[in-house]
Parts: sequence; C-alpha cells; structure tokens
Amino acid sequence: MAKYAIGLDYGTLSGRAVLVDVKTGEELASSVYDYPHAVMDRTLPDGTPLGHDWALQHPQDYLDVLAHTVPEVLKESGVSADDVIGIGTDFTACTVLPVKADGTPLCFLPEYRNRPHAYVKLWKHHAAQDKANQLNQIAQERGESWLQNYGGKISSEWAIPKLWQILDEDPEIYNAMDRFIEAADWIIWQLCGKETRNSCTAGYKAIWNKKTGYPSNDFFKALDPRLEHVVDEKLSRDILPLGSRAGTLTAQAAKLTGLKEGTAVAVGNVDAHVCVPAVGIDGPGKMLAIMGTSTCHIMMGTEEHQVPGMCGVVEDGVMPGYFGYEAGQSCVGDHFAWFIDNCLPASYYEEAKQQGKNIHRYLREKAERQKPGESGLLALDWWNGNRSVLVDVDLTGMMLGMTLQTKPEEIYRALIEATAYGTRMIIENYREHGVPVEEFIASGGISQKDPMTMQIYADVIKMPIKIAGSLQGPALGSAIFGAVAAGEKAGGYRSVFDAARAMGKVKDTVYTPIPEHSAVYDKLFAEYRTLHDYFGRGANNVMKRLKEIKKQS
Amino acid sequence: MAKYAIGLDYGTLSGRAVLVDVKTGEELASSVYDYPHAVMDRTLPDGTPLGHDWALQHPQDYLDVLAHTVPEVLKESGVSADDVIGIGTDFTACTVLPVKADGTPLCFLPEYRNRPHAYVKLWKHHAAQDKANQLNQIAQERGESWLQNYGGKISSEWAIPKLWQILDEDPEIYNAMDRFIEAADWIIWQLCGKETRNSCTAGYKAIWNKKTGYPSNDFFKALDPRLEHVVDEKLSRDILPLGSRAGTLTAQAAKLTGLKEGTAVAVGNVDAHVCVPAVGIDGPGKMLAIMGTSTCHIMMGTEEHQVPGMCGVVEDGVMPGYFGYEAGQSCVGDHFAWFIDNCLPASYYEEAKQQGKNIHRYLREKAERQKPGESGLLALDWWNGNRSVLVDVDLTGMMLGMTLQTKPEEIYRALIEATAYGTRMIIENYREHGVPVEEFIASGGISQKDPMTMQIYADVIKMPIKIAGSLQGPALGSAIFGAVAAGEKAGGYRSVFDAARAMGKVKDTVYTPIPEHSAVYDKLFAEYRTLHDYFGRGANNVMKRLKEIKKQS
Repeated sequence: MAKYAIGLDYGTLSGRAVLVDVKTGEELASSVYDYPHAVMDRTLPDGTPLGHDWALQHPQDYLDVLAHTVPEVLKESGVSADDVIGIGTDFTACTVLPVKADGTPLCFLPEYRNRPHAYVKLWKHHAAQDKANQLNQIAQERGESWLQNYGGKISSEWAIPKLWQILDEDPEIYNAMDRFIEAADWIIWQLCGKETRNSCTAGYKAIWNKKTGYPSNDFFKALDPRLEHVVDEKLSRDILPLGSRAGTLTAQAAKLTGLKEGTAVAVGNVDAHVCVPAVGIDGPGKMLAIMGTSTCHIMMGTEEHQVPGMCGVVEDGVMPGYFGYEAGQSCVGDHFAWFIDNCLPASYYEEAKQQGKNIHRYLREKAERQKPGESGLLALDWWNGNRSVLVDVDLTGMMLGMTLQTKPEEIYRALIEATAYGTRMIIENYREHGVPVEEFIASGGISQKDPMTMQIYADVIKMPIKIAGSLQGPALGSAIFGAVAAGEKAGGYRSVFDAARAMGKVKDTVYTPIPEHSAVYDKLFAEYRTLHDYFGRGANNVMKRLKEIKKQS
Repeated sequence: MAKYAIGLDYGTLSGRAVLVDVKTGEELASSVYDYPHAVMDRTLPDGTPLGHDWALQHPQDYLDVLAHTVPEVLKESGVSADDVIGIGTDFTACTVLPVKADGTPLCFLPEYRNRPHAYVKLWKHHAAQDKANQLNQIAQERGESWLQNYGGKISSEWAIPKLWQILDEDPEIYNAMDRFIEAADWIIWQLCGKETRNSCTAGYKAIWNKKTGYPSNDFFKALDPRLEHVVDEKLSRDILPLGSRAGTLTAQAAKLTGLKEGTAVAVGNVDAHVCVPAVGIDGPGKMLAIMGTSTCHIMMGTEEHQVPGMCGVVEDGVMPGYFGYEAGQSCVGDHFAWFIDNCLPASYYEEAKQQGKNIHRYLREKAERQKPGESGLLALDWWNGNRSVLVDVDLTGMMLGMTLQTKPEEIYRALIEATAYGTRMIIENYREHGVPVEEFIASGGISQKDPMTMQIYADVIKMPIKIAGSLQGPALGSAIFGAVAAGEKAGGYRSVFDAARAMGKVKDTVYTPIPEHSAVYDKLFAEYRTLHDYFGRGANNVMKRLKEIKKQS
C-alpha cells in the first residue's frame, strides 16, 4: 500500500501544496493558493498607511492556504487521508510575527487591528535598517565572536532588528506580545497546537548557535536595556534540529485540511534550505544553487569554519548533524531583466518580430553563437551590491572592454558570465577556507529554462552541473521532511538522508564543462578576480565615493 | 567697393565653396558638389577589386568641384569675378596621390587606369598598417627623436606608410611617379600651374620639421634601401608656411572657375587646422575643439614642447610663427551614436512617439534633468581606443556604478561626461608640459546642436566655451587664407592674424561653467583620472589581455 506525504511551501505571494509518493518522490498533485492580502506595503486592510520600506503580511492568509490547497491535492490525486503519513512545511524567512501565549497573532485581536506592528513582517520588510546598523556597530565594538558566522553583518531583514523596531516604534505592541515567532514555526503551532522552533530560522535569522545559544543578555542590554531578557521574554531557547517531528495534527487542523488527526508534522523549515534533500543531496560538499532573481547557495560541511562573506553557518541548519553553510549573490536574474528592460534596442524587437520569435529567444540565440572571450567584455556582477564574498551593498556594477562594434547580445552574455564568475568566487572562497565543494546542483527558474547560462556556469566553475528534477523543489523538500517526521514504521524514513536518496530528484541532463571553454574562462576569471579585489577590497573605493557623491547631489 | 574671397573645402564625400565678404566675414553664397566617385573602397571604376581596408578617391572629382561650385557661388551672390581677390582651400589629410612631373595624376594615364596604387589614397585608407608598424619599430630602435613630436607613433594614415605600401606592392607605379603629393597641394598646383607644398601637411603627415627637415636618408634606407633618397626623388624639401601665397590663377584655371586669371591663391591647408582663424583665434593658448564623430583639438604655442600623446607639434602648422599643436579624441559623437543604436530600449521609442518627440530630443530631455553626480556612473571614453593622451588603440571602454535602478539616460549622460573628462585630460596634459591653454572654442556638429553637452564640457573643463559662428568653418577659414594671399594692397590682409580678427566669428552664446557643477565634476574627474591611469598606464592591462583573448577565440 503506497504512502504519501504533503509538502507545503509558503512563498511571498502564495502557498503551494504538493502530494508526494513517499517511496518514489513522484508528485501526484499540486495546488496553489494566492494570499488574498498579498504583500501589504502601502496600507493595512483598514487603510492605515505604512511607512517607506515596509512589507507586511496577514497570517489569516497562511491558514487559508491550508484550508484550500490540502483538500485540493487530496481530491486531485484521489489519495485517501489515511495514506498521508506526514506533513512538512517551508516558509520565506525571516518572516516574523508577534503572538499571544496561545499563538494568536496580535493582529487578530480587534484592539491591535489598526497597528502595523501587530502584523507579520515579511522577509523583505526593510524598515529596520537603522536598527541593523546600530546592532552591527555595537556587536563590532564589543567584539562579539558570533558576528563572523554571518559574514560580519546582521541583515535588517532578520529577527532581532525587526523586533527592536517594534520595541522602539510601538512599545505597547512589544509589551503585548508573549512571543515573537517565525511564520515558519507559527504555522507548525497552528497544525500541532504547540510551539516549536526550528534550528534553521533560529540559526540563520535569530543569531542562535547550537553550542553557544543566543548572544548574551549583556549584548541585548547594550542594544537597549529593555531588551536585556528578550530571549526568555519573547523568543525561546528550545530549538529542534531540522528532521525532527514537531508533533501531530490537532483535531482542529485535521478538520481544516481534511487530513487525519494525529498525522505527523515536521518542524518548520525555510524555502531555500528545504530544497537540499529535494535534489537528493545527502551529505557534505554538495552545493545547491537556487538560481532566480538572486541566487542562494546552500551546502553542508562537517566542521564549523568561519568563511568570510557567508550569509551564515548553522549547525543542524540544513540537515541534522552537519554545519549548514549559506552564501548568496544578490543579483542574478535581476541583472538579465535589467538588461532587457533598459538596454535592449528597438531594432532587436523589430527583428525578433519579423522572425516570429519572442525577444528572449531571439536574444539568447544571438548570445549562444558567441565563443567564450569573443566579445572582449568583462563585468563585475554588482548591480545590486555584493553579498558573498564581500558583503558590501555599496558596491556597484562595472563593465569594460566595450568598442564601437560591441553588440547588445555581447553585453547580455557578459552579464551572465559575470554572475558565473561570482559563483566561482564563492566556491573558491569556501575551498580556501577549508570547506570542500565537490558537487554542484542547480535549481530555480534559470536552471530549468536557460541551458546557455547553465553551460556557461559549468564551463566557468569547471564542475558538472546537475539540475533539480522537480519544478516544485521547496514543496518536494517539505514533503521529504514530512516523510521523515512520520518515521520508518509508519512507512516513512528513519532519517532525512535516507529520504533524500529515495525521494530527491535530479534530471538526466548534466551540463559538463567543455575544456576549451574552461581554458578561456580561467583566463577571464583571473581578470575578474583582479578587478573584484581592486574595486571590492579597498584598493580603489571609487564605487563608494560615487555613491556618496550621488547622495549629496 | 567690397572685396571677396572664396574658400574651397574638400571633404570626404563632397567639396564646398563659399564666397565671403573680406571685410566682415559674411558668407554670401555657398555651393556643394558631391564627388561622383565618392569613396572607392571595393573596386576601381573599371571593376578592378580593392583589398581590405582600402579607401581611394578620383582626382577628377576635385577638378569637377572647381568647375561646379565656384561659378555657382559667383552666380548666387551676384559678385563679379573682378571683386574676388583671393582663393584659399583646405583638404582632408593625409590624402595623397602619385603624379608625373607636370602634375598629371598617374590614374589619368590610360596605362595605369586599372592600377589601384595609381589613385588617390584617402585619409582613411588603412591598408598600410603593417608599414606603419614597421616604421614605428625601426624609428624606436634607432631612437629617432622626431617620433616624440607625434606622440610616439606614426599613423598608418600618414604619407610615408602609404608611399611605402606603393613601393612594396606595385613598384612600377612607384617608379613611374615623379612626385607623391598631398591632394591639398595638388589642387593648388592645378590652380596655379606650379607645385608648392604647405607646412601643415608636411609637418603633421610627412614627418617634416621646419628646423630639422625630414628624417634622415639613413632612416629611410633602414626602412627599405630603395627609399634612401625618397624625399628628393618623390617629395620636396621646399615647404611654404601657412599664410603664404602659392601663386595666382592660371588662364586655364580661370576658365574652369569663372574667376579672373591672376587671382591670388593661398598654399594648401587641412580641413581641421584651417578652422582656427575662422573662429577668430589669432594667437597662442586658445584651443579649438572640432567636435563631431571624433574630436580634433588644435592650438598654438610659442615654444616647441614634446607633450605626450599629441598627434603632432609643427612649426607654422596652424599659423605662421607659432608651433601648432594637435591632439585628438578618437570617439566622441560615435559614442553617443553607438549608444542610440545599441542600447536605447524599445520602450523609449514608444514613449517618445506617444509624446510626439523625436528620440534624440526625448533622450536629451531626460538626460538634461540629471544633476552632476546623480547617476553614480563613471565611464572611460575609450570605445575606439584612446588617441590623446595615451595613444593606444588597444584600450577599450569602461563604465562603473551601475545599479538595478540605472536608467538609459544616465548611461547616455555618463558617456557624454566621459568625453568631457577626456578633453580635460588633454588640457591638463598640455598645461603640465608647459603649454598654456587659456581659452576654449568649439566647432563642429555637436557644438552647434547640443547645448547640454556643451554645458557639461564647460562645467568639466572649468572654462567658458565659445561656439564657432559659422556652420562652414573650414570653408570660411580657407576664404580667410585666400584674403591673406591677396594681401593688404589688393583689399585683403597683411597677415592671417589680422584676417582672423576681422573675418573670424563666434556666436553670442557662451557656455559658462556653473561653479556647483564644477565642484562635483572636480571630484568625478579625480576618479576618472585614477581609473584612466590604472587601466591606461600599465597598472592593469586587462583591456589589452581581453583583446588578445578575443583575437585567439
């Protein structure tokens, strides 16, 4: 009798459920539900205006996803709820909300309905930047050693700056909340009826470390005396490793979803990290690159190394027992979109139209015809700053080698190549700091739709590139964790490693480096690296000075 | 009784005559004649094919210009030939042809009609590059001191490489020619019936120096033993300074043009250099920038300095008694055209159309709204290499500061600013080498049509910019030299300085530096200079290495 797991993937604008065969990883049904409130960045539902850089969500939407998508996948697949042995979830992060002791979001309470700080702060809520700046400065002054686990900088997107913003701007909400919790953990609370916290969001977003815990109360006191006991007052020191069972479905949640009461539920997880088992990764040294508008690189290692420029290193942060490493490139698909929007001439649209091709295909065909090095162009992929390995938002883009013969498709390809060099920098940086990178698997839109880019990446990084087998990587990954939460006896798995090997998938297509191309890209990468260091490591801070001049003008 | 002079301007595709009032500089009539053979770069008139990079002209076209345009301006103005006291001419250079002892072009002789080397080699004939390379190498090895008068490099466009190419590829033509002469001087021969040679083309294009003459016979022998006596066999050591009278119109030329036999004729001149008196420049320290697809900077000094990166310093090369300095930017309007052709997105064309504006105006309006420094962009204007001050064709373009918010109009403006920084480099380079630059006058298409660019230039170079008063600068300049050839007694002028003051013209419009803009541009120029030296003076030769990789690919 086949058994099934459901994976629930909470994205920025919608939630998705997939129903997966536990033995094969086959995805039998999938359902998407768009959040009715989407992203609130101008006003609350009642019209209360929001500040600049705010981005909120409504937690009711997350519950509605459960009510709509789970019954739908059951219905679509014809699978009985009796055969669904586990549920796993993943969420955007750091996406956090203030709740009462029973888990009720403050924004559900009539008295706080018109208070912006009572809502969910979405990952891309950027209004806590000054709090992040203060936090980083104080941590640096105090020589806090954990800072280096995050590439030397805590992002304004993360939990503590967001929490501090509430304290500062609406202390009544701060005082009214009993817990400040990741939506990833809150949804589990709604399913299981009890609070749990996962090691991934705690580690990557709330400065928690398995061995040393959170930063000291002294540190929090240095931020603001009222924050001295914030961990015990608002967070939790009880953190479960990924791969754990959070609990089982309550009667209420069973009713909401159409699943059986008592179905196993995995601890919360994060959309990027949960993809790792979905591509079959079951151990260290295998890098997963999730390539979209930006790229996130997740990998496991057997030791904790402080590698410059990472987004974080977290024990149990990806799979239990390993150190999860995360790095990032802040601009990948965004580069190409910028180019299409701002640089592609009218004549190309006309030619594409005449040839009956869409503009992307037309452009790609032209770019594909070029040989490595043929354009004479070289770019630094810093249109949106540099996350890894320089952790510097004030860096900007650079391109050189242009002549009067330079064509748009050459610029386009140079931008693609630049992002590949950026990936190679990250890989070499890991290796130089004692963290092996032995395999490379790509997922995300670009990996599925853009063979030219993937071949360029293979040629540049000089490793074969495998491609994720599922278009719904996070949801499949969540289902894998659901199968692990169910356990071996119930028809699931003993460990996420076993589950990843069985249920994770890559395509048959492998992009293999072409040695002649790699030989040219070796030379070009050496040039990239020289310029990367010249402009990025202080020899010539022209980019920062230009930004300063820009601000003043 | 008013007196008149005629200026004849021989361009790349046509010749123009203007008839000018000698007292006021007023242009009474003008006539253009397109060369029937235009530029021959594929075949001779009989179909004989030409090699790659060839560019020839037919000297009959130059005579036809005389026959068509001079009668036309007389007719149009109603001026009597009796009142035309002098003729001046200017030509593209180095545009050279082989002729017999009586001035007959070899290509007029039936036996040579199908021989490419018998025709005029136009300035942009680039097929003698390997000769130029050999010449430069030999000159360098021998430590020839004159090389530094040309920024360290003789161009393949100049006379000696072109002559050497003939010797090498068609020695019969080489042996058949009695003289190898600039078209600038040949047309004077046709007008006056005797050979003269002018100091401008001799100095800038044939390596002649007023004090030291040509390179030694030994040097020419080192190039090729057959060239040992080339100066005496094919050129001339008899060079007249600009501002001299070459002679008077022959009966035959008078008949051809409708002018009077005996009318004074000035020595030959070059289209760029002849513009100097046309804007009223009458002495040293006043830079004329002729701004078109590329920019040519002409200036006079009282001393001979070897300034790095010049195109040449020539005594009597602009006006008699001064050292003429020439510098150049190889890519100015071409930058902007490249941008429009290759980078301007379709959406801008649509918006422009909706607003009923042409695309140039639409773009310029957007660019005009920006404040200096506001875009955060900085470029090196090397899309076509760098002529002055680095003399390096292997340099390529660079731009940095791009973000995802960067708009096309910002890139466009950054390219304009980059060319202004390039001009400032040239000015500062002169000053640093003892040649004062005290005034700046602009002519050429950009100066007339693009107030935004001219204001940016004024802000960047921190000098007021005056604009040429005539749209036909070269022809007006030629007429001025014609009035000088006529002399004071005939109603003309004693010297070109007097004539320039009387007949030269600038507009009322002056672009005055805006101090707040200049303060920002000072900062940006400092950054430009750092990058200029980093990429241009050997600290990082990445541009050359990329070109090398490009060649190999």
